[in-house]
Amino acid sequence: MATERVASWAVNLSYASLPPEVVQAAVSSFYNWVGCALGGASHPTTTIACEALTPFFGKPTSTLLGHKGARTDASHAALLNGIASHVHDYDDTHLATIIHPTGPVASALLAQSEALGGVNGKDFILAFVAGIEAECKLGLGVWPKHYDIGWHITSTVGSIGAAVAVGKLMRLERTPMQHAISIAATQVTGLREMFGTDTKSFHVGRAAQNGLMAAVLAARGYTGSLQAIEAPRGWARVVSTSNDVDAQVASLGREWEIARNAFKPFPCGIVVHPVIDGCIQLHREMAKGGVTAADIQRVHVRVHPLVLELTGKKTPQDGLQAKFSVYHGGAIGLVLGKAGPAQYEDSVVLSAEILNVRDKISATADETLGADETEITVDLSNGTTLTRHVRHAIGSVEVPMTTAQLEDKFIDQVSLVLGAEGALRASKACWALQGSESVGELAKGI
Amino acid sequence: MATERVASWAVNLSYASLPPEVVQAAVSSFYNWVGCALGGASHPTTTIACEALTPFFGKPTSTLLGHKGARTDASHAALLNGIASHVHDYDDTHLATIIHPTGPVASALLAQSEALGGVNGKDFILAFVAGIEAECKLGLGVWPKHYDIGWHITSTVGSIGAAVAVGKLMRLERTPMQHAISIAATQVTGLREMFGTDTKSFHVGRAAQNGLMAAVLAARGYTGSLQAIEAPRGWARVVSTSNDVDAQVASLGREWEIARNAFKPFPCGIVVHPVIDGCIQLHREMAKGGVTAADIQRVHVRVHPLVLELTGKKTPQDGLQAKFSVYHGGAIGLVLGKAGPAQYEDSVVLSAEILNVRDKISATADETLGADETEITVDLSNGTTLTRHVRHAIGSVEVPMTTAQLEDKFIDQVSLVLGAEGALRASKACWALQGSESVGELAKGI
Repeated sequence: MATERVASWAVNLSYASLPPEVVQAAVSSFYNWVGCALGGASHPTTTIACEALTPFFGKPTSTLLGHKGARTDASHAALLNGIASHVHDYDDTHLATIIHPTGPVASALLAQSEALGGVNGKDFILAFVAGIEAECKLGLGVWPKHYDIGWHITSTVGSIGAAVAVGKLMRLERTPMQHAISIAATQVTGLREMFGTDTKSFHVGRAAQNGLMAAVLAARGYTGSLQAIEAPRGWARVVSTSNDVDAQVASLGREWEIARNAFKPFPCGIVVHPVIDGCIQLHREMAKGGVTAADIQRVHVRVHPLVLELTGKKTPQDGLQAKFSVYHGGAIGLVLGKAGPAQYEDSVVLSAEILNVRDKISATADETLGADETEITVDLSNGTTLTRHVRHAIGSVEVPMTTAQLEDKFIDQVSLVLGAEGALRASKACWALQGSESVGELAKGI
Repeated sequence: MATERVASWAVNLSYASLPPEVVQAAVSSFYNWVGCALGGASHPTTTIACEALTPFFGKPTSTLLGHKGARTDASHAALLNGIASHVHDYDDTHLATIIHPTGPVASALLAQSEALGGVNGKDFILAFVAGIEAECKLGLGVWPKHYDIGWHITSTVGSIGAAVAVGKLMRLERTPMQHAISIAATQVTGLREMFGTDTKSFHVGRAAQNGLMAAVLAARGYTGSLQAIEAPRGWARVVSTSNDVDAQVASLGREWEIARNAFKPFPCGIVVHPVIDGCIQLHREMAKGGVTAADIQRVHVRVHPLVLELTGKKTPQDGLQAKFSVYHGGAIGLVLGKAGPAQYEDSVVLSAEILNVRDKISATADETLGADETEITVDLSNGTTLTRHVRHAIGSVEVPMTTAQLEDKFIDQVSLVLGAEGALRASKACWALQGSESVGELAKGI
């Protein structure tokens, strides 16, 4: 049932049926993704993969974002843009499942749109929404046990989302779409054990490739199981012990998951965000009062238990590890008042001024706090104490990033690659996705 | 421990330390695999994938076996040769785990050997053995629950085997080899739900690609988890509830799994083999007595319960489904006295003469029988009854295929692609693997 239902819903979805807020969320998600992909393009996790795989590159149909107009085949573009877009842990989050939904779907879709040609903004948005909805509904269907067991849900369901998106772009009919879902579902890519290594973002790019390949094969009549998701030995039962797939799939088109997509204000695990948010606020307060980091004696944060479970790393040794350290997050907030990719560079992570404050931070798990909540206390050498209670961190459903903040984030990342002017031009082009006559031309222009 | 142990064992393995029977098993496995890959090259499951993916093909460094010398990049060659080698379910079986071990490993290894150049037969055999041992030991480590849950063990562990083989070929040191294992392990490809569809053999090719990519990335310094296999949320615990990995890995180099590799005499699930074997024997007996299929009234087979669970399909509609039908297997044995790929063509599966006998076959599960055992009773219209007890089917450890039978199987498949003379030439070349100065030249010559 579920496989057929997802397929037929996606196949029948029309642009006219998309509510305006869904289209808006799609454009914002794409916009944020492009910024992240450009921002991650020169990260070693991206460039090493690019160099290692160059011998396999095919006909250059598709843009490698942030590589000065370089192009490769659609599959490698999907992989490398996917890696780049996730490498700073700065992308987006479907908060109910902590899926980072856009990476796998947009990476596959943009690459294949360029390869096929003749894809306009509306075609793209339609396929993108189909992919994101399939991805998140199936994610909800196997949540939370799927994640608890140890699967990186972003890539495991991302493969399927990418297949649905590319399948929709290629106008698959229902049965081939079921096969595309099936071929994607059988490629279960992503163990959480890889967090903190290059392979975490590799998952996102590989999921994009998995889905792209699944759709391309299915378009030619390749077969998988028509009951891939729900069969007794199908995907849902093999990868999880929780199974709410039927109910979740039944809500397709009634409750839009993309409207629940949130954008990351900081390039690290979302559970660290309340602490960073509060520490940045405290940094501003201290700056106003002429207080500096040197005056900090002790810092204590109370956080939801998940924060320490996922990001309890006390002495991260590099930028990747620092993403899993609430202590580093707090320190950069207090010392630098900022937490962008630059504050997760290895050199910053190991700098004396950060280590000094980082090692003064202690943390307590408190079950009464929400996952997006924190209480912070800073004892200063003059004997005074500053406190801050963050009820909902910036980037949560309650306190979403504003368009201006999203733009700042984009410009901040993209200027480093394209320069200030280029960043503004790219920003304008991406916001104009809906009216674009050719997504291929749009990508070329970035 | 396990990740490091597998890596360091593979890195330190030398050709001189390989026992002669291990080298012989490696050559036979390679030989059998080439025959299967050539035999499956023109199957639609291979050719559809080839056509669908042509737009992605890179620099032609590596041979597409059975495609008149056509070449593509190593990754696509690994995929397509892998698919071809498994599509007839005719390859090989590590009987303790029912892994078909050579497909993922040889497909990746041959393709990358050609791409790198300068690989001789001994280099190839050494890397091949390292990959097969890693693959089978890890398979034993998660067997049987891994398979019971619904994973296609051939491809899930095949990815890792391929990574170790290519990593060995590329002379990775221990730490990069651990990363290669890790990047391969995170790509858990293959649900049993896909059995009976194109995607089953896709798994084998995709596993080859997964492993190849993992090794190529790791060779450039890409990182995964150094405890990918054994970590609390590592591969073994995520994909299985049985875990004997440590003990299995400890026996690396002491007990050689490749020496336990068996070659399939018939192109279908191994559990059907006793019935086919017995029915072919009965066909010969009937032929001697002047009895034909038209004289058959009723057939009854008693089999191990697994046979009906895995291959209980009563009315297969095509060749792929027929591989999962003990009824079709029995019918071709009795009627045609042969069970090669030709007897699994759609036209044969649906022919009146086969349907007529197939529908007269009944089967009973009997727990007292071994998995490679069967008792067959054929009632004839003249009132007599023929019986046959197969204690161990041909292709089992007890009754392995002889070299002559393996050669017949090779020639039978390869003649259709290369003609009789070409098949003999290819046979000779493959048997001479050990002395080959260039595996690339060997592949080109096939």
